Amino acid sequence: MSEQPQSRQPRTRLYVDSPLTAGQAVGLDHDRAHFLRHVLRLDKGDVVAVFNGRDGEWLAAIDGFGKGWCSLAVTTRRRAQQDGPDLWLLFAPIKRGRIDFVAEKATELGVSRLWPVFTRRTDPNRVNTDRLRANAIEAAEQSERLTVPDLSEPMQLEKALAAWPAERTLYLCAEAGNVRPIAEAVREKGAGPAAFLIGPEGGFAQSELDEICKLSSVVPVGLGPRILRADTAVVAALACWQALSGDWTAHGGDTRPPFRSPAESAV
Amino acid sequence: MSEQPQSRQPRTRLYVDSPLTAGQAVGLDHDRAHFLRHVLRLDKGDVVAVFNGRDGEWLAAIDGFGKGWCSLAVTTRRRAQQDGPDLWLLFAPIKRGRIDFVAEKATELGVSRLWPVFTRRTDPNRVNTDRLRANAIEAAEQSERLTVPDLSEPMQLEKALAAWPAERTLYLCAEAGNVRPIAEAVREKGAGPAAFLIGPEGGFAQSELDEICKLSSVVPVGLGPRILRADTAVVAALACWQALSGDWTAHGGDTRPPFRSPAESAV
Repeated sequence: MSEQPQSRQPRTRLYVDSPLTAGQAVGLDHDRAHFLRHVLRLDKGDVVAVFNGRDGEWLAAIDGFGKGWCSLAVTTRRRAQQDGPDLWLLFAPIKRGRIDFVAEKATELGVSRLWPVFTRRTDPNRVNTDRLRANAIEAAEQSERLTVPDLSEPMQLEKALAAWPAERTLYLCAEAGNVRPIAEAVREKGAGPAAFLIGPEGGFAQSELDEICKLSSVVPVGLGPRILRADTAVVAALACWQALSGDWTAHGGDTRPPFRSPAESAV
Repeated sequence: MSEQPQSRQPRTRLYVDSPLTAGQAVGLDHDRAHFLRHVLRLDKGDVVAVFNGRDGEWLAAIDGFGKGWCSLAVTTRRRAQQDGPDLWLLFAPIKRGRIDFVAEKATELGVSRLWPVFTRRTDPNRVNTDRLRANAIEAAEQSERLTVPDLSEPMQLEKALAAWPAERTLYLCAEAGNVRPIAEAVREKGAGPAAFLIGPEGGFAQSELDEICKLSSVVPVGLGPRILRADTAVVAALACWQALSGDWTAHGGDTRPPFRSPAESAV
């Protein structure tokens, strides 16, 4: 409605590849340039926030637009780099809308690695990793993460488990059998590298479950008496782990991005 | 591929309005009849499972199809009625795809009541309750719940809070301010009627938060250092509560539907 007051508050937040340091110039590709200029209607001098997963978060001013590009001038650091918990998600690819959702939600929930694995009953037999990565980047930008999750090469589950690092707990979300309640299992295991394995909509084959459970790092956990869709199980399991053993256990405002004052907003 | 062996294993699971008892006839409407006949390609004599939220789960055989209808004959009871935890979800309506998701996920996660509330920054100013209810019913069928969540009349948040029952804890999911980690708050409160309040994508207005926090039943909780979308916050918060204080705390197979043997499947 009315003219916005000039403010140092960044108008959006972008993940970039370039190194970030004061004075650095950063070029944006066609899509990003279009987004800033024609969707957000930003102009030269407007400020955005940028992060690259290594150098923290910086403010950068739009330096100029051209045909299919935009350049930014990095000014000041806003937040120091901080890595999230060491938490992997292994998941069987599911159909399109729901796999987008899995990448988005897992990123918001702070996973450090996304790893598509093919199980015996996995329906799609390939996965669009570019699309997964784009969803993860967008969610990292929106959720104010300082990193984008790593994306492991999709492979057969048994191949992924063959080289499993012994010190990383692998919570197997199982909807049947002799499993322990997730809260109890996570509390008992305590801190340390963790991963969750979520099967496809059709579930694991029993012989496959038997194989998985031979691995000494595996802890089968249950997510209650109702049958959850695979995408629901992803969010539910990751949230429980974060709340009990991850970075949701810290108190109050200290863990929030510093610019997020109580006056701004709340979910 | 090959002929399916005749089995008493129901081919699908339907929510119905009718009373359920042995010998009862149940009529299905056009959509359900079409689904059974033309989507699942069932025939007279095929068995489905039915539940109505009051009488447990029953097996029923298809008795006949007609133009736009199907009748079932209820045979034997499969599970006794059992109500889930007393857990409400108050949520600000969000855009279409994501509100469908909220109804689906909250139902899978066992809420007993869905309650859309309009906050100051809620964008949609009306909500399609028929659609919400249809999503909840479908999720109840799929997740093997024995109930469908109640759907409260959408209203302004302040009106909903004006008559708030004092004994029901209202966890306010807040992304800023002086909040307690969700696990700590839920553990401390322990059992008892609970509700979660999740704001719109734009967050609550500060004056609105101040008003909400005057209510003695309100416990502001945090969901970690990243900014979650409203739909993510719904799933995350409900999962944490179920894992710590709800029906995910029970052990092993006892809490599963009895027919779900380890050999069948797992998430």
